Amino acid sequence: MDRVDELTPGDALAATHAERLDADDRLRPDFVDRVLEAVARGEAEAARDLVRPLHPADRADLVELTPEEDRPALAAALGDLIDADVIAEMNDYVREDIVDTLEPEQVADIARELDTDDAVAMIEDMDVSDQAAVLAALDPEDRAAIEDALSYPEESAGRLMQRDLVAVPEHVTVGDVIDRLRHDGDLATDFWEIYVVDARHHPVGYVQLSWLLRTPRDIAISDAMMRRQTLIPVDMDQEEVALRFQKYALISAAVVDGDGRLVGMITVDDIVHIIQEEASEDVLRLSGAGEGDINESPTESYRARIRWLVANLGTALVASTIISFFGGAIEHMVALAVLMPIVAGVGGNAGTQTLAVTVRAIATNQLTQSNTRRAITRELSIALLNGATIALIAGIGVTIWSGDWHLGAVIAAAMLTNILIAGLAGVIIPLTLDHFDQDPAVASSIFVTMITDSMGFLAFLGLAVLSGLVSL
Amino acid sequence: MDRVDELTPGDALAATHAERLDADDRLRPDFVDRVLEAVARGEAEAARDLVRPLHPADRADLVELTPEEDRPALAAALGDLIDADVIAEMNDYVREDIVDTLEPEQVADIARELDTDDAVAMIEDMDVSDQAAVLAALDPEDRAAIEDALSYPEESAGRLMQRDLVAVPEHVTVGDVIDRLRHDGDLATDFWEIYVVDARHHPVGYVQLSWLLRTPRDIAISDAMMRRQTLIPVDMDQEEVALRFQKYALISAAVVDGDGRLVGMITVDDIVHIIQEEASEDVLRLSGAGEGDINESPTESYRARIRWLVANLGTALVASTIISFFGGAIEHMVALAVLMPIVAGVGGNAGTQTLAVTVRAIATNQLTQSNTRRAITRELSIALLNGATIALIAGIGVTIWSGDWHLGAVIAAAMLTNILIAGLAGVIIPLTLDHFDQDPAVASSIFVTMITDSMGFLAFLGLAVLSGLVSL
Repeated sequence: MDRVDELTPGDALAATHAERLDADDRLRPDFVDRVLEAVARGEAEAARDLVRPLHPADRADLVELTPEEDRPALAAALGDLIDADVIAEMNDYVREDIVDTLEPEQVADIARELDTDDAVAMIEDMDVSDQAAVLAALDPEDRAAIEDALSYPEESAGRLMQRDLVAVPEHVTVGDVIDRLRHDGDLATDFWEIYVVDARHHPVGYVQLSWLLRTPRDIAISDAMMRRQTLIPVDMDQEEVALRFQKYALISAAVVDGDGRLVGMITVDDIVHIIQEEASEDVLRLSGAGEGDINESPTESYRARIRWLVANLGTALVASTIISFFGGAIEHMVALAVLMPIVAGVGGNAGTQTLAVTVRAIATNQLTQSNTRRAITRELSIALLNGATIALIAGIGVTIWSGDWHLGAVIAAAMLTNILIAGLAGVIIPLTLDHFDQDPAVASSIFVTMITDSMGFLAFLGLAVLSGLVSL
Repeated sequence: MDRVDELTPGDALAATHAERLDADDRLRPDFVDRVLEAVARGEAEAARDLVRPLHPADRADLVELTPEEDRPALAAALGDLIDADVIAEMNDYVREDIVDTLEPEQVADIARELDTDDAVAMIEDMDVSDQAAVLAALDPEDRAAIEDALSYPEESAGRLMQRDLVAVPEHVTVGDVIDRLRHDGDLATDFWEIYVVDARHHPVGYVQLSWLLRTPRDIAISDAMMRRQTLIPVDMDQEEVALRFQKYALISAAVVDGDGRLVGMITVDDIVHIIQEEASEDVLRLSGAGEGDINESPTESYRARIRWLVANLGTALVASTIISFFGGAIEHMVALAVLMPIVAGVGGNAGTQTLAVTVRAIATNQLTQSNTRRAITRELSIALLNGATIALIAGIGVTIWSGDWHLGAVIAAAMLTNILIAGLAGVIIPLTLDHFDQDPAVASSIFVTMITDSMGFLAFLGLAVLSGLVSL
């Protein structure tokens, strides 16, 4: 798929690379400007000369870095340099915008060039009617493969897998397999393993190409193969597929349907993106930023984010209500109003720390029922250490600042209490959400903040009143 | 490396799998309990029978899920079932604890079984003297490879790479290469590509095994190879290596030294862990949780987290100082103290949303100098939409609650202002840190919160005074 015709020899290539990309493989801003200026001046050939040496992934980056309004002119100037491979490498939002401007026949032309999984990624978000038009423009074989993929749920193994793979029966020899591979010019895709299947097309083992190459030709494939094999059910969620690849260090894996028949293959290069995406999702969901892609349109981002801000407005009301109970106390002693955000803020931070650790441990399958109790104990002991330290610092600081040891003692006790509550909430809330099969990254953060805010104000103002520092 | 001897046929294997692991490949709690109970009863053979069918990665999980105090007994009972492959799969913290209990000769025995990269990962964190003892117990060849790896910076390509690889000169044919692979029984590692080198041992191209198998034997390797090749400098940081693998969909890549000579190979299975780790790091650093591994000792976690809590205590002082300027106003109108956490809290949430999106976009190389201005404009327009919506809701709500439209107008204006400031801070702070080559995930969060807290209080209390709602 990323076999690109290449005419320049190695060293010249390295020089061109450095001119276009920085040390982090990002396109240099001045290179992007040069291309866009050439396009603006109508010098399409100059722009094409600049872009031609770029890898498809870098060409895709170029399109993404180009302001939205300049993309049609860029695409027109570059023509076939923006080919199917480039489209497959593009950010989903940018690709969607570009695909929207194309005729169904053009989209079908691109889909024909792609592996099934990339073709599906391109058309799965199209309108139903446009999708039907594209499918109609494909030949029956490609159409069947894509329709089959679309019949599986979004983000499932069935959408990710390729149908092109090498499966051989058990009775052949290593030599037979090599000869067959050499004569079967049809196979378009890259592969690293071949699968051995029984008469019912159930996988019974696999052979890595490097073993195949090192095994004498007359050995039966069933003696060369590894029987212990990690299979992927076709309806498995892509996040679980990614964790399975990671856990068992897989390069590719056979996908089986409900009857255990081999129906496809997933390769690690497609999984790498998912691991990145799923981990990013946790950061973004914890912050309530939705998908959070910088290529998303501002109105889409607005819709994703405003929900959480409104929810946050609601939870902030809980904290405000608690403060309002203590209106009299605040009137008597304004220092309470000055200090109360410190108690809530540091507690919130402590809660977020615990939350982040817990959410990642759940997401990477490190935290299971077997070690739940240990995790809670661990977080509580960290909270105790943190709480004691912060209580000491804040207590002494406030005593010196206010000259009132009683106020210092109240804030110290309130901070210790709130940090302990924060530690407990930070580990229990995501575990509870996970227990009820909810994504612990979503909503956890807002609950934890609500608890640390409310409990911070309640502990601080409540202790001030209870200890007789101030009356209500 | 993960070729495990396997006697059970496929279907029986699947049944055993389901008995031991849940659908997410996590060891079932009751299975873990059964093993630990067998160990506790001194029935080592029963424990071994349970564990024997497990993949090394699952055996490593079993050790991790076992409470720390029970691990020595488990390890003693399982004996050689906890072999080098299992140790390589273990969480760093857990592995370190186990390795600490072993004699240098035992560690050397394990190191001998591992690929260089895994051996290095095992011994890189040992005390210098223990490390020297382990190295002394190795044979010269293994020792040289590990010492060479240790000479590169931590988290660099030089530490990640394997020295075992297949490199062939340009003049040989495809048939020569296949014959050589078949007769060279020495090669211990799995591989997916072979590298073609010139007389100076500079890589000039590569051949995927699947192309090799499909190319006639008499073709020269230099005609079968792809010249366009992504090379990894030996001193490149592992995060950049991971991004390069991801961007160019690499399965393996040649590592070159400063003179351009081929010195090693990195394979994608080692990269998958790094992508996961680096993405997790962003979540954890944004929250100020340090490494944030649940296997870290509580005192280590305490040390990592307390720094940020103390820093947060410091930044909260800024917000408190601002409130203290308005002590008189709060005395006159306690409703200000009741409402001010709402302004700060929702602003903080909006800032965190923008921050998460920006940090991930920087980490994945999506945000470069070319689109910085666009990203800022985009965040400001989202902030404007969010701010207007929240201002409207809060303004109307507070007017109804307090019966005072003036207070409603003040909170509405304060929220709009703070959410705009939050949007700006959330994108500018991480970009600035990145510009000065600092990790934008570290410290960004605490700055953003300081700004949204302070500006929230200042805007709300300041506008209340300036608009004449209340006097100082």
